[in-house]
Amino acid sequence: MSIEVIAVGNEVLRGMVVNTNAAYLSRRLTEEGWNVASQLTLPDEISLLTQGLDEAVSRSSIVIATGGLGPTLDDNTAGCAQELFKEPPLEISNPVGAAPGFIFNEGKRLLFLLPGIPQEMEEMFEETVLPYLKKHVPAVPLYREAIYFYLLRENDVDPLLRKLQTQYELDIGIYPSYSGVSVILRGAKKEHVMAAKTAIAQAFKASLLPASKMEEAIQVWMVQRHQTLALAESCTGGFLASQLTSLPGASDYFLGSLVAYSNQLKERLLNVSPETLKKHGAVSSQVVQEMCTGLLETTGADYGIAVSGIAGPSGGTVEKPVGTIFYAIGKKEEEPEVGTFHVKGNRQTVILRTTKRLLALFLKKIL
Amino acid sequence: MSIEVIAVGNEVLRGMVVNTNAAYLSRRLTEEGWNVASQLTLPDEISLLTQGLDEAVSRSSIVIATGGLGPTLDDNTAGCAQELFKEPPLEISNPVGAAPGFIFNEGKRLLFLLPGIPQEMEEMFEETVLPYLKKHVPAVPLYREAIYFYLLRENDVDPLLRKLQTQYELDIGIYPSYSGVSVILRGAKKEHVMAAKTAIAQAFKASLLPASKMEEAIQVWMVQRHQTLALAESCTGGFLASQLTSLPGASDYFLGSLVAYSNQLKERLLNVSPETLKKHGAVSSQVVQEMCTGLLETTGADYGIAVSGIAGPSGGTVEKPVGTIFYAIGKKEEEPEVGTFHVKGNRQTVILRTTKRLLALFLKKIL
Repeated sequence: MSIEVIAVGNEVLRGMVVNTNAAYLSRRLTEEGWNVASQLTLPDEISLLTQGLDEAVSRSSIVIATGGLGPTLDDNTAGCAQELFKEPPLEISNPVGAAPGFIFNEGKRLLFLLPGIPQEMEEMFEETVLPYLKKHVPAVPLYREAIYFYLLRENDVDPLLRKLQTQYELDIGIYPSYSGVSVILRGAKKEHVMAAKTAIAQAFKASLLPASKMEEAIQVWMVQRHQTLALAESCTGGFLASQLTSLPGASDYFLGSLVAYSNQLKERLLNVSPETLKKHGAVSSQVVQEMCTGLLETTGADYGIAVSGIAGPSGGTVEKPVGTIFYAIGKKEEEPEVGTFHVKGNRQTVILRTTKRLLALFLKKIL
Repeated sequence: MSIEVIAVGNEVLRGMVVNTNAAYLSRRLTEEGWNVASQLTLPDEISLLTQGLDEAVSRSSIVIATGGLGPTLDDNTAGCAQELFKEPPLEISNPVGAAPGFIFNEGKRLLFLLPGIPQEMEEMFEETVLPYLKKHVPAVPLYREAIYFYLLRENDVDPLLRKLQTQYELDIGIYPSYSGVSVILRGAKKEHVMAAKTAIAQAFKASLLPASKMEEAIQVWMVQRHQTLALAESCTGGFLASQLTSLPGASDYFLGSLVAYSNQLKERLLNVSPETLKKHGAVSSQVVQEMCTGLLETTGADYGIAVSGIAGPSGGTVEKPVGTIFYAIGKKEEEPEVGTFHVKGNRQTVILRTTKRLLALFLKKIL
């Protein structure tokens, strides 16, 4: 059963908001065994919106549209949808907000309208839409397995995947990220999917990630061994800590982060010596080494990661251009591992890539 | 001139990645004066992809597609596009990655193919696609103004906007966020757009945000007055710091953040007394008050924000359910302002909403 996911709103068409609703709905529908055939964004204007919804309910047996249900001048989705149906819709109550959702179900046309605010949409989808779909148009799920690798590129796994795809008649996706790849296998026969999974995991054993995310792999490893971690962040500005603390249970191993953005705090909190800062600059192997040592002393953590770099857009020099990163990974009573790397991109990208790279380097140390 | 933006890839259709490329391209094209008529996501399968691209170049005079240009088994975009054109495309070089981009331009059909990796796509768009569009299909831009408000809801501004929309024949969008609204005015006549902007700004003067983002408004205010800010974060886990440091120049006023996730670090770094922690718990007005006082002492900052709360999913109680947040906003040599609020949602949402709320509360204090 194919589903079409639609976002309504000029704010999406003009790029003022990122369409996370489409990703959420598509991921959850795929997980539950349905096939999302397309994603579309429609404008708020009544004539174009009505036409777009009409075409969608004609071509797709199930349509889920989000946005445009509020009370203001550019909210037209419910009115436009009603033009396409004879009967009034079922109303879906909103447990966390004001705007209700709607279900239109007439003949072979099934249209859900959900609010555009992600949290309201998600609650309504989980509480009402999903049970409704399971009851009225149950999915026939394919068997599905996922494998996650870090420090591995698409090209590394591609030849083997091509072979397995043909051999086992599988639907295989490779999804690269900044620091690794995810491989998703889907097929009608469980034994085929499992055989392919085993072959891939064996072939790239050294890069196998025991969780879907690096921060999760770190958390599992640390908690199992009753170890603690603390951070000393400069250029990542708290982003590395926020990635680790985004997971429930992070407090079981994560003590905290000293975001020492200014040199003053590097000295006060991490005991970095003013001479080292003056002689080598804040972005140097000497400073990250002192940051890491000071961090382990101050916090009493078993492991520590210290990072200092140039996130840009300004602050770069010929010797240390924007994207130059120094890091130290330390373990209590051991000499810290100090290193440097370079990442490309604008400020946000430098911070993101640096964070992913540090997670990968830390995993490499502990796994 | 209408443009259609297409993302190619099963990873997008299955919700494994959020389609930030559509948002980036749509935002930039809108800023440069073009009109993005629709956004679409197509699968990797050759027949469906070829058909989807064929329909797109037939209905839209300009199509920009991203993704599926790599070397692996599910990368089919270039091959499918070539089926629709007689001549081979122009190649666009990739300054930050491996896969090149392509321009197909035949008769009335113009199709750009760009890589799916955001940074590569963005560089190619800015360096090659945008200059090409400006030369071959120049836009006739509408006059555009934006106004940003914090601590204001859609419903507050809607009645006035409806009046101005009719009066001045404007295209008006209201975009709510967790902590305010943005209003975008577009029209053919500059004097109409400016008159409406003045009327709206006057009507809601008290909530006017002097920048597009709260963190930017904070930075401008602090830097102009040579003031410094430091944070003591518990439940936000570094996310508040990462929002402030996402802006270039944050180091001109932001000293750093003590992400004291564990009670141990609250005591060691922020001088929170073990008795207070024991008697009132880490999530309490007493603890955030001590965190704030300790923060200002330790860092020497002019201003400080301390926060402790229950991000969930576990850790909630009847008296302090998940989403309970305590905060203190302090200024050197003054008694800190201590308060509490409650936010709804899952862990990510609690962290995000708490961060936005704290930025708004801090702005309210200083503006």
